[in-house]
Amino acid sequence: MIILVTDFEEFYLAQMKGVIWKINPEAKILDIKVRNHDTISGAFVIDKIIDYFPDSIIIGVVDPGVGGSRKNIVIQTEKNYLIGPDNGLFSLVCERHTPLKIIEIEKKNISKTFHGRDIFAPLAGKISLKKDLKGKEIKKIKDLDIKDPRIEKDYVECTIIYIDNFGNIITNIRDVKFNKIIFMDKEIKFLKTYSESEDFLVLIGSHGFLEIAANKKNAAEFFNLKTGDRIRFYYA
Amino acid sequence: MIILVTDFEEFYLAQMKGVIWKINPEAKILDIKVRNHDTISGAFVIDKIIDYFPDSIIIGVVDPGVGGSRKNIVIQTEKNYLIGPDNGLFSLVCERHTPLKIIEIEKKNISKTFHGRDIFAPLAGKISLKKDLKGKEIKKIKDLDIKDPRIEKDYVECTIIYIDNFGNIITNIRDVKFNKIIFMDKEIKFLKTYSESEDFLVLIGSHGFLEIAANKKNAAEFFNLKTGDRIRFYYA
Amino acid sequence: MIILVTDFEEFYLAQMKGVIWKINPEAKILDIKVRNHDTISGAFVIDKIIDYFPDSIIIGVVDPGVGGSRKNIVIQTEKNYLIGPDNGLFSLVCERHTPLKIIEIEKKNISKTFHGRDIFAPLAGKISLKKDLKGKEIKKIKDLDIKDPRIEKDYVECTIIYIDNFGNIITNIRDVKFNKIIFMDKEIKFLKTYSESEDFLVLIGSHGFLEIAANKKNAAEFFNLKTGDRIRFYYA
Repeated sequence: MIILVTDFEEFYLAQMKGVIWKINPEAKILDIKVRNHDTISGAFVIDKIIDYFPDSIIIGVVDPGVGGSRKNIVIQTEKNYLIGPDNGLFSLVCERHTPLKIIEIEKKNISKTFHGRDIFAPLAGKISLKKDLKGKEIKKIKDLDIKDPRIEKDYVECTIIYIDNFGNIITNIRDVKFNKIIFMDKEIKFLKTYSESEDFLVLIGSHGFLEIAANKKNAAEFFNLKTGDRIRFYYA
Repeated sequence: MIILVTDFEEFYLAQMKGVIWKINPEAKILDIKVRNHDTISGAFVIDKIIDYFPDSIIIGVVDPGVGGSRKNIVIQTEKNYLIGPDNGLFSLVCERHTPLKIIEIEKKNISKTFHGRDIFAPLAGKISLKKDLKGKEIKKIKDLDIKDPRIEKDYVECTIIYIDNFGNIITNIRDVKFNKIIFMDKEIKFLKTYSESEDFLVLIGSHGFLEIAANKKNAAEFFNLKTGDRIRFYYA
Repeated sequence: MIILVTDFEEFYLAQMKGVIWKINPEAKILDIKVRNHDTISGAFVIDKIIDYFPDSIIIGVVDPGVGGSRKNIVIQTEKNYLIGPDNGLFSLVCERHTPLKIIEIEKKNISKTFHGRDIFAPLAGKISLKKDLKGKEIKKIKDLDIKDPRIEKDYVECTIIYIDNFGNIITNIRDVKFNKIIFMDKEIKFLKTYSESEDFLVLIGSHGFLEIAANKKNAAEFFNLKTGDRIRFYYA
């Protein structure tokens, strides 16, 4: 299984698939779209899906800096290969899946604007055929530019790492528990399921993280928040 | 074939696919997105596609009440299995495909927020491997909360059951015929194809229902209408 | 491989897939969505993907005139079959892939509104099983209504043929080179990669055409432009 986590679809994505199938016509391909230019979301999605696809090759292409100085890398973990730019996309997943080998992909003189099609897709195709992985090894990958959550006496501070299509706001905090909080002047209850509230609620989502949601309403639009924003909950 | 009719995509949908493929790696999966929280649209879509996929297993997850008191069910019909919440999603299709058996899925102590991944997907995977369907049988499923159309002397009253991506407004009425109507102060002709009109038109769509459309314009936005709205056409 | 390039998704697309799989259950299907009613975009996408899918059958359904007088056609080229309305959708690709045979599909008395499902999908299914292609041959296909680019002493004039999901504006001009231009009162540099600019830039995209882009901004929305618009760059 080759999984494409990208911030584009359209003919760009189709071209990547065509390149892979020319090399390995039997490859099974799954694609997942993330918000444009949103590297944090991409990293979150890769982290959330990898355990559902053991032995998969994941190409991540959320790459606002394409053509710039960031490296292209392949990471081999115990069960997976991760291919893409070294811009933090793989940092969350590598906290749980230790890299066995990190290879820097040599930059050749090809398309300066579409590494997904011209570099990552052919490489994934070859790896899916069990071709050897060669290249210059490097020691570590780049982290995302997000701070750890902070749990203080009066409040919790955390970072938004994903906003889903319902507008649910997913943060980078786990393992908290309270009855209710004050968030941006709103008192919000901590509940177990969406249907328990007619309004806003805070819950631990199916992904394991603290989430601010709203029953049939878009919480992210309401609070005007986006991925990467640092937010505070005060205990109520 | 396992068909996923859901109001989400993103990593949620990918996780469901991963769960199915872990159980049955050969399963062919097709997914169809419907509007967020729009159970009526989900029911319409399931009804519109089922005959194109004989022997398929359809998982429907449009489920604003997830975690609440509604049941989870599996319906066996002559040719298909239908899996999802008992919230009306399968009511339209079951008017034409009589349930042979309706099983209530036992609620175990798992993820309170993502039944699609933790309950429905594994069950579909198992059914696709011809595992037996066991559980408590129930007699009937919930209906959607939509009224039948009414044909009166001066007008037709019906309910919007789907708005497509072009903004075409699909109603729950069939078998009507007239030359033109008055709809929200607009005189609209009853025609046979989109290209016959430069403006608004009413036609029987390829789905068999009465549809209010507009040539290269979004009729639903123009009239500010949504699924579930009750509307009237006056004969002109 | 059967590729569906359409301006719809939803149950409409699923029905087309169902029809194809009923005829050829082994068919591999890929779908690509283009903007509603945007025949030029459809033609561009077909042209951009075809070389990545040798031996594919491409169904194009971007068809605002469905039900009107335009013909339905099948084009056989050296490596591909192209199926759809004769409205210019295949004109770009046929400039590079000469048609060996163009067949006009006979219009039978079926669904007036959904040729994709009732005419094109079954035909693609049959062709994928190597059934013979019969019918009335015609000599030429319709062109798109777009003008060639013009390179003048002071300016370049060209037509927008695609706007991608990032808002990058793709024109129908290749093989130009300059340092900077004036476009709608803005001085814009000609660069090689997106990351070289913090603002607007002009570059030759991975598709080979001149493109107006913006670093993490939507250029098409900013300039309020759409496919088919004729634009001018003045040399700066």
